[in-house]
Amino acid sequence: MNIYPVKGIRLASAPAGIKYADRDDVVLMALPEGATSAAVFTQNAFCAAPVTIAKKHLSEASPRYLLINSGNANAGTGEPGYRDAMETCKTIGAAVACPINQILPFSTGVIGQRMETSKFAAVMPRLLETLDESGWEKAANAIMTTDTVEKIVSKQTEIDGKSVTVTGISKGSGMIHPDMATMLAYVATDAKVEANLLQKCLNDAVSPSFNSITVDGDTSTNDACVLIASGEGELTLGDVSDTGYEAFSEAVKAVCMELARKIVLDGEGATKLIEIKVDQALSAQEARNVAFTIAHSPLVKTAMFASDPNWGRILAAVGRTGITDFDIDQIKIWLGDVCIVEQGGVAASYTEEAGQSVMDKAEIIIRIDLARGKAEARVLTCDLSYDYVKINAEYRT
Amino acid sequence: MNIYPVKGIRLASAPAGIKYADRDDVVLMALPEGATSAAVFTQNAFCAAPVTIAKKHLSEASPRYLLINSGNANAGTGEPGYRDAMETCKTIGAAVACPINQILPFSTGVIGQRMETSKFAAVMPRLLETLDESGWEKAANAIMTTDTVEKIVSKQTEIDGKSVTVTGISKGSGMIHPDMATMLAYVATDAKVEANLLQKCLNDAVSPSFNSITVDGDTSTNDACVLIASGEGELTLGDVSDTGYEAFSEAVKAVCMELARKIVLDGEGATKLIEIKVDQALSAQEARNVAFTIAHSPLVKTAMFASDPNWGRILAAVGRTGITDFDIDQIKIWLGDVCIVEQGGVAASYTEEAGQSVMDKAEIIIRIDLARGKAEARVLTCDLSYDYVKINAEYRT
Repeated sequence: MNIYPVKGIRLASAPAGIKYADRDDVVLMALPEGATSAAVFTQNAFCAAPVTIAKKHLSEASPRYLLINSGNANAGTGEPGYRDAMETCKTIGAAVACPINQILPFSTGVIGQRMETSKFAAVMPRLLETLDESGWEKAANAIMTTDTVEKIVSKQTEIDGKSVTVTGISKGSGMIHPDMATMLAYVATDAKVEANLLQKCLNDAVSPSFNSITVDGDTSTNDACVLIASGEGELTLGDVSDTGYEAFSEAVKAVCMELARKIVLDGEGATKLIEIKVDQALSAQEARNVAFTIAHSPLVKTAMFASDPNWGRILAAVGRTGITDFDIDQIKIWLGDVCIVEQGGVAASYTEEAGQSVMDKAEIIIRIDLARGKAEARVLTCDLSYDYVKINAEYRT
Repeated sequence: MNIYPVKGIRLASAPAGIKYADRDDVVLMALPEGATSAAVFTQNAFCAAPVTIAKKHLSEASPRYLLINSGNANAGTGEPGYRDAMETCKTIGAAVACPINQILPFSTGVIGQRMETSKFAAVMPRLLETLDESGWEKAANAIMTTDTVEKIVSKQTEIDGKSVTVTGISKGSGMIHPDMATMLAYVATDAKVEANLLQKCLNDAVSPSFNSITVDGDTSTNDACVLIASGEGELTLGDVSDTGYEAFSEAVKAVCMELARKIVLDGEGATKLIEIKVDQALSAQEARNVAFTIAHSPLVKTAMFASDPNWGRILAAVGRTGITDFDIDQIKIWLGDVCIVEQGGVAASYTEEAGQSVMDKAEIIIRIDLARGKAEARVLTCDLSYDYVKINAEYRT
């Protein structure tokens, strides 16, 4: 896969030894003057200190530097954690003569432990010296925690006769049930995009991508997704009605969708990718509710792990959604192309062999037709395996 | 433990070979004329055929027989499943000359498979011949599915100078997040209790017991809890204001609490019992919401399995409850007697050793003080272990 640099966006990474030895764990992103940024953050009430600071700084000024570390989430650290995160921003600010509120901190890793800010200070000269437009892949590796593969998506396209690049990285494997954002994702484009328009573009892209995935239903304290427009490329966008905005928005969405999919594929212990499609719901909320209830069911997820077409568990999950006026005789459920449930029971045409042939695949689509409206939703999740338990029983030790 | 028979309530069990070989899997309970019954059932929209029939029969007449089988849930079986369940009722009705609507069917086991009604017919003579007041323990064994121990609680007490017996059995180990009822529970007393009062007594007992437990957040299609008053003992109750009602209600609640606790202790793969107490919430619903969010968190549950005081996961779970106006600086979290979180971060007095000493126990209490109201809730759950995945990946095969 080609990874296209984004003109004006420079990245560097370095090993600070925050938690992991012998690997990069801090990333610095430098944005050119005139770049615009948009962001969405976790809705977790116990949001981490860096999230609080990043939101505040974004409301005050246009960011010039993003500082990201893995290994320590700086969450559940109270006032001291807030001071630690500010301290890391000040280190950069002093080195490059940049106002503190143009620096955004991000952290991911263990919750509840103080950070050693001196470790950041120690690698700052190296980070500043090695900033480069080709730093995306190293950055994607440096922000990983329990991830087993780096997540990077890069697209170049022509919009309105002008070349546009969109490149993004993300991390995330467990504690994944993003609510307005995912663990961490950074997407940049060389287009010049007005800030409010960029935020709208990000919101539209996040909904079907990062906000439609779950690994374990646990929402992180540190979720953040940032979209940056360096403004150093050919395309300029100022309004929704501008020629090219729709195509640009689709390009951003496509990158976010692929990054989100990579997170689920790398879900902790995951052996299967499961796509849940709910059609003909009364409302989008109802459709999402049904889809996420299935996606969060440990019984559905363990059956998927076992490649067992135990569709009764899917039916039970749909039934416990809390919607009391379902006409269950009208609901249809499919495993791939195989109809498994109709008229309140197993479909007349269903055979265990047909169900098994779908379950044996690595990617499984579960489709539910509620037959009561026009809304739909699509959610991606993975199975629940021994390794999910192993990873989360052993993490921290 | 003494198991006190309930005067007038006779039980029999037999091996029908529905799914399991060489063990009893069908139970018949016979109630005397004049007995009153109360029941609560699953809120799952895909409720099983026997649930639909039991609710209908209960609304029409006073039950005389309860027929319970394990190994097949008769859920997700549509109209044919309904006819199968009615067929089993008719077999009893014909044998004892009892109207069909005085017979309640109950099933638990695999979802989505047709029952072989001939297997019921074959054991019916044996069941009717062996009905006996001493049949409780055999019945408790016969209704088990993935349960590893039978669940039976029996109490004898004196109320208002009169002897009262309350004896109950339950089953359940996975797909446990009862919503108005649990998997299956049958509690009987020899008191004479007016039917509406008995229903109130059951509702009051179910709320803090079966409706306050979860193993995996999955609500069964077959949950049912029945309370029977044979009326053949010494105590008679007709109204809430009657002397002795309060003590009677407490006795029933105590039996239900113990049965519910036994279900969590025997949760699939469980190695720890976890009690979650939420205090000072704005409403009981808010308190339950916070408690269940923690109880359903796979990350909290795997940390408990690992005896890892990874309290950051508890904090993250509290934060994702969806309540946006928490003052997180006011929230306190305890592991046992050890305060772990205050002022938005780790408590000043906290040590890893103190946290570890709580986690090493087999029963762990997590307490959250929301500091914003007077409501509280208490939920019981268990940890998430390799064996939960193993049991549910292998069940059916």
